[in-house]
Amino acid sequence: MKLASLREGRDGRLVVVSDDLAWYADAAHLCPTLQAALDDWDRVAPMLELLATDLRNEAIPRARFHEHDAAAPLPRAYQWADGSAYVNHVALVRQARGAELPESYWQDPLLYQGGSDSFLGPRDAIALADEGWDADFEAEVVVVTGDVPQGTTRDDALGLIRLVGLTNDVSLRGLIAGEVAKGFGFFQSKPASSFSPVFVTPQSLGDWWQDGRLDRRLMVERNGEPFGRAEAGVDMTFDFGALIAHAARTRRLGAGTIIGSGTVSNRDADGGPGRPIAEGGLGYSCIAEQRAVETLRGGAATTPFLRRGDTVRIWAEDDRHHTLFGAIEQVVE
Amino acid sequence: MKLASLREGRDGRLVVVSDDLAWYADAAHLCPTLQAALDDWDRVAPMLELLATDLRNEAIPRARFHEHDAAAPLPRAYQWADGSAYVNHVALVRQARGAELPESYWQDPLLYQGGSDSFLGPRDAIALADEGWDADFEAEVVVVTGDVPQGTTRDDALGLIRLVGLTNDVSLRGLIAGEVAKGFGFFQSKPASSFSPVFVTPQSLGDWWQDGRLDRRLMVERNGEPFGRAEAGVDMTFDFGALIAHAARTRRLGAGTIIGSGTVSNRDADGGPGRPIAEGGLGYSCIAEQRAVETLRGGAATTPFLRRGDTVRIWAEDDRHHTLFGAIEQVVE
Repeated sequence: MKLASLREGRDGRLVVVSDDLAWYADAAHLCPTLQAALDDWDRVAPMLELLATDLRNEAIPRARFHEHDAAAPLPRAYQWADGSAYVNHVALVRQARGAELPESYWQDPLLYQGGSDSFLGPRDAIALADEGWDADFEAEVVVVTGDVPQGTTRDDALGLIRLVGLTNDVSLRGLIAGEVAKGFGFFQSKPASSFSPVFVTPQSLGDWWQDGRLDRRLMVERNGEPFGRAEAGVDMTFDFGALIAHAARTRRLGAGTIIGSGTVSNRDADGGPGRPIAEGGLGYSCIAEQRAVETLRGGAATTPFLRRGDTVRIWAEDDRHHTLFGAIEQVVE
Repeated sequence: MKLASLREGRDGRLVVVSDDLAWYADAAHLCPTLQAALDDWDRVAPMLELLATDLRNEAIPRARFHEHDAAAPLPRAYQWADGSAYVNHVALVRQARGAELPESYWQDPLLYQGGSDSFLGPRDAIALADEGWDADFEAEVVVVTGDVPQGTTRDDALGLIRLVGLTNDVSLRGLIAGEVAKGFGFFQSKPASSFSPVFVTPQSLGDWWQDGRLDRRLMVERNGEPFGRAEAGVDMTFDFGALIAHAARTRRLGAGTIIGSGTVSNRDADGGPGRPIAEGGLGYSCIAEQRAVETLRGGAATTPFLRRGDTVRIWAEDDRHHTLFGAIEQVVE
C-alpha cells in the first residue's frame, strides 16, 4: 500500500496511490489525514488496504496522481528524529577535517531531534537566504512509527514500523560547526526537510525490506548528473529497529514519529563501493562526503555546495526503473 | 484569556478557563483543540475571547475546573524548542564542573530542539526507569507562537506570541554529558516535559508581561519545601522575541511552536538574589544549580537528584497568591 497527502490545508488530504504511482483514490472519507490514520492505525489501515485493492482492480473512481500535487506525506509531524546509522558518513566527514571518530559511534546509535513543524513537499524549492551557509542535501531513508512504548526492544520496534519513505535532510554545513561546538546540537543548521511523494508499507516492499533496512540503491542527481547510487541495504550499522529502540529508551514515542537513517553511505575500505561515481563507485548521498574524499586525496575540496538554481533529485527504483516512492526534486532559490 | 485542554483523545478538548481557574466553559463547539485554534487564530481567538467574557459574566453554562483533569494545553505539538536564555544557569553548572563558558553564550541565544510528540499533563507522574540517570526538574517559562516567517525580527516576533505558560523540562543529568560529547545535542537525556494546566494570552498578564519577559517569580517546591523563587523577569539575557527570531533565522516556524526560556536563574554576582533560599536568596529552578553552588563552596554536592516518591511543584502567582497558570505537580515513579 502506498499513501500520499495531496496539498490541502496544513495537513494535506489522504489518498491511496497505485503501485505504479499513476493513479490515486481519495481516502478522505475514511480518514482525512495521514496523521489521523496513524493515530488509529489498527482500525484505519485495513480499510485503506481494501481501498488499495479496489484501486488495483479499477473497481472504484480514480484520478491521475501527479507528484507535484503532493505535499510531504506528513506535511507536519509531532516528531522527526534523524539518526546517523551509516557510520561511514560520519567517519569520512570527520576524517577530512582531522577530527577523531569516537569508537562508541560504532556501538551506540546517534540521533538528533529535528524540527517537524513544517516540512517541504517533494517539489518544493529550498529557500536559501544566504549561499554562504553552504547548503547541502542529505539523501536518507525514513520510517514512520506507530505508538512506541518506553523501553521497546529492537525486535519489537521492527513490528511498529508503519511506513517507509525517503527524505532530503537539507543541512547548512556552514552553520553546523558553530552549533555543534555549543553542545546543544543542530538547530539553525537544519532547515525544513522534504519527503518523497509517497510513503509505503514495509509489507509492500517485499524482499526489498530486510531486517529493518531498505535493500535498494538510493539514486541522487545534482543538476541532472549522477551524484550517488549508494546501496541503502549495505553498511547501515544500525537498522531502524535499533534506531527506534534507542529513541524510546527513556520515553515513549507518539504515533507518526518519523525516524531517519542519516545520510546513506557506503564504505570504500576493503573494496567497498564507496568511491566516486567517475571511478565506477556508487558515489555519495551528500556533497560533504564528496568534498571529504576530495580533501583527503588532493588536499582541497573542489565540488561546491548548493548554489541558487541548482537542482537535486532523490529516488529509489524497482528492477524496471520505476520509482518506489516517487522522486524528491528540488531547486535551490 | 486562559485556555486549557481537558483530557480527551490525543489532543485534548479545548476549554476557556476563568481568571481564578475555578470554572471553565467548553469551547469545543467553536474549535475542538488548542492546536486547531492556533492554526486559525485570527478567526478563532476573538470567539474564544467572547466566550471568556461570557464566562466572566456568568452568562453561559460553566463547570468546575479541576487542574488534575487537564492535559498539557498542547498534549502534543509540532515543535518544542527550548532556549537557554538565563545564561547564568549555564555559567553556574559549567563553573562547577570546571568547564569554560564561551563568551558567545552571552551574545547569541542557544536553543535545542526538544521532543514534542507526547507531553505530560500537569499532574502526570515522571516515569523514571533508572534512578541512576540522575533526573532533575527544570522550571521554565514558555510561549506558544503563531506562524513565524523565516527571518522574522525580534520586534515582530513579540507580536506573534499567542500564549504564555510554564513547563517542567525534565532532564536526565546522568545522560547529558555523554550525549553532548557526541555533538548531536540532547535526546535520551530529555524525556517528556510537562506543562502548566493553563496557558494565557500575554495581554491578560498586563504589566507582568514586559518586553517579552514574564515579570513574576517562578515558585518551585520539592517534597513540599521551598526550592526556588527565582525572578523570571530578571537576568533573562535573551527575551522571547530574541529566542523566536533566533529559531526562525533559517526556516519558518509553524503555528503552535512552543519556545522555552530554559531554566530560570538569577545571578549571585553583584548582590543579585541567586543564592540558596536558606540564606535569604531566591534559590534555584533545578537541582543541578543547587548542586553546583554546593560544589563550588564545599567541594561536593549534597542535594540528591530526584528519587522515586519525590514530588515537584512549579507555579507562578499574583499578588494575592493565586496561581496564574495553575500548578505543575508531579511525583517521580
